[in-house]
Amino acid sequence: MVKTQRDIAQRARRIHLVLTDNDGVLTDTGVYYSSFGEELKRYSVRDGMAVELLRQAGIETGIMTGEESESVRRRAEKLRIRHVYLGVRDKRRQLDLLLAQTKFSLSQIAYIGDDVNDLGILTAIGAFGLTAAPADAVSAIRHAVQFVCRTRGGQGAFREFADHILALREPRSDDRRRSVTPGAIVTYGKDT
Amino acid sequence: MVKTQRDIAQRARRIHLVLTDNDGVLTDTGVYYSSFGEELKRYSVRDGMAVELLRQAGIETGIMTGEESESVRRRAEKLRIRHVYLGVRDKRRQLDLLLAQTKFSLSQIAYIGDDVNDLGILTAIGAFGLTAAPADAVSAIRHAVQFVCRTRGGQGAFREFADHILALREPRSDDRRRSVTPGAIVTYGKDT
Amino acid sequence: MVKTQRDIAQRARRIHLVLTDNDGVLTDTGVYYSSFGEELKRYSVRDGMAVELLRQAGIETGIMTGEESESVRRRAEKLRIRHVYLGVRDKRRQLDLLLAQTKFSLSQIAYIGDDVNDLGILTAIGAFGLTAAPADAVSAIRHAVQFVCRTRGGQGAFREFADHILALREPRSDDRRRSVTPGAIVTYGKDT
Amino acid sequence: MVKTQRDIAQRARRIHLVLTDNDGVLTDTGVYYSSFGEELKRYSVRDGMAVELLRQAGIETGIMTGEESESVRRRAEKLRIRHVYLGVRDKRRQLDLLLAQTKFSLSQIAYIGDDVNDLGILTAIGAFGLTAAPADAVSAIRHAVQFVCRTRGGQGAFREFADHILALREPRSDDRRRSVTPGAIVTYGKDT
Repeated sequence: MVKTQRDIAQRARRIHLVLTDNDGVLTDTGVYYSSFGEELKRYSVRDGMAVELLRQAGIETGIMTGEESESVRRRAEKLRIRHVYLGVRDKRRQLDLLLAQTKFSLSQIAYIGDDVNDLGILTAIGAFGLTAAPADAVSAIRHAVQFVCRTRGGQGAFREFADHILALREPRSDDRRRSVTPGAIVTYGKDT
Repeated sequence: MVKTQRDIAQRARRIHLVLTDNDGVLTDTGVYYSSFGEELKRYSVRDGMAVELLRQAGIETGIMTGEESESVRRRAEKLRIRHVYLGVRDKRRQLDLLLAQTKFSLSQIAYIGDDVNDLGILTAIGAFGLTAAPADAVSAIRHAVQFVCRTRGGQGAFREFADHILALREPRSDDRRRSVTPGAIVTYGKDT
Repeated sequence: MVKTQRDIAQRARRIHLVLTDNDGVLTDTGVYYSSFGEELKRYSVRDGMAVELLRQAGIETGIMTGEESESVRRRAEKLRIRHVYLGVRDKRRQLDLLLAQTKFSLSQIAYIGDDVNDLGILTAIGAFGLTAAPADAVSAIRHAVQFVCRTRGGQGAFREFADHILALREPRSDDRRRSVTPGAIVTYGKDT
Repeated sequence: MVKTQRDIAQRARRIHLVLTDNDGVLTDTGVYYSSFGEELKRYSVRDGMAVELLRQAGIETGIMTGEESESVRRRAEKLRIRHVYLGVRDKRRQLDLLLAQTKFSLSQIAYIGDDVNDLGILTAIGAFGLTAAPADAVSAIRHAVQFVCRTRGGQGAFREFADHILALREPRSDDRRRSVTPGAIVTYGKDT
């Protein structure tokens, strides 16, 4: 779909909302159980910083997940994430509702997901917006997205995607290319 | 025992129940202690999705473990896993009870385990059904099973085994071979 | 800024206070949420030993973090860390307050941080003191510090920095070079 | 000190007690803090199985640690570990007390530790008994012990040491060599 780096950069400049799956992207897929049931999920402050950096660039953030853990709601509150959709059965359908209720068009949305239930929404957004997956996403998802992060879920994959979008939005010139910090997390490939 | 890929595929099509050990397969062997004793175990949503994908294919799931943690029972409830055997001293013997009480024969069962107390049941099931181990299973188990996952326990080893069984059940044709997503998690070897 | 190994050694001998960021240095960036909100952060006893080893060498320790988790205060109490600054909006400004309130000069301070909010304080301290970052710090920080640890945050990065400072302070002679244990954690580079 | 593989095997056959440090050997050095202070430590069921396998071979187990966490006492109870020494300031001295109070001599004891406070006891036991360290022990310890595990602390390092001792005790013959499972965890080196 996306042909050139220039296309990608143009898409990046249009993004107004970065949506993310919860488990496997903001977390490392782990869920901690006690004798009372589900107790904990682990998040990364690195991703929290990404929400802040996106906000400073005027970009909103959102979480869409099939699970209904109260912990994700608490994490979203802490990070002042505005769009939070829990217990979503059909993410593709929920996306349509989101588009109808908000000012956003598909080309203004970026999405990062990791498992087969993200396939529908990734395909829809991938046609006009930006899509990504953590390094350890399942195979079908890694092959369906535009960017595969070097970072694993829960280790800063969302941050890497955010950094990448923000870097792409910078004015495109030879000066910019030279000023890019060597080793900056803007390349993509298999995690090591 | 198993000679050819065709044999394996035939066995996969007969599977009606995928049984798994708990600690070291669904978890990364970790157990979290507080001053009150055992508190938490960590599961993966990736394995939870595997239970759902198997269910959609008409395959049941079960957990058989030597431990008696209440946390595993909670996890099984959440995933609606029907066959749950806790505090099992002799898994080989428990398997006989399971066979006597249910409609299943040995050729309809797959099992994934990681430590020496899984050796008896793995040998029994390996003669007619399918067997696997996480990448970080102990040596004796890795050498006793048909498939060694690339994924470690608690990181989606059960999911990899489930994906593998489901892929093997697909109609065997040149079309199918071509349609397999490159990089799909159906190969086996040492984790990297 | 720093030109030679001799300069670094001279700086190390002047250090009286080793300051550290909390999340991403003393922790692996992880924060564990329950339905009640933030519950846990994970520290390393390896870093706790570092505080003790520095104390034995007459060097004080401190934590400066933008977060306000009560857990870090408890960890600091346990380790008898004297200088604890929580909820710091501007670390560069907090450093000035610290300098004004204590006997320390910039050349007596070492700092280890991992994310972009550490850039200001790292630049200030780097001009006269010592600076470091965990192996998995963000790119901008890894390129701004004098030492990049081989160890990741929460896995002993603070200990590695402390060991390095202590090793640099030893009398510089051929004898010392020969007595250095081969493989000692005093080299720096990318984590493997 | 130890010259040949035959010496090591002879020593292994004399072992009646395997002592271990807690943090960094049975755990991955992690300690989880909440707003109430230290809450959790993470253990491995793989090490729990090691205690059982040693018991079946007539070998006792013990834990000696400088910390006083109640969690380790709970873990020891669960595993029915008989010798538990918490809050030990000087492990070398505590070893003398242990020798005076029990039937054991130095040649009957094996010890595995990971940090500088284990150096004294490791040196004492290393002269007559067996010593080991997890793959991620600090450099000074890795260079002071007879065996460096391939496994990291909390990931089964204690199990690897136990498996190694048990393998060494088997009758030494060409038959035995051939019967060793290829890939069995009895080789040592850097973790990968």
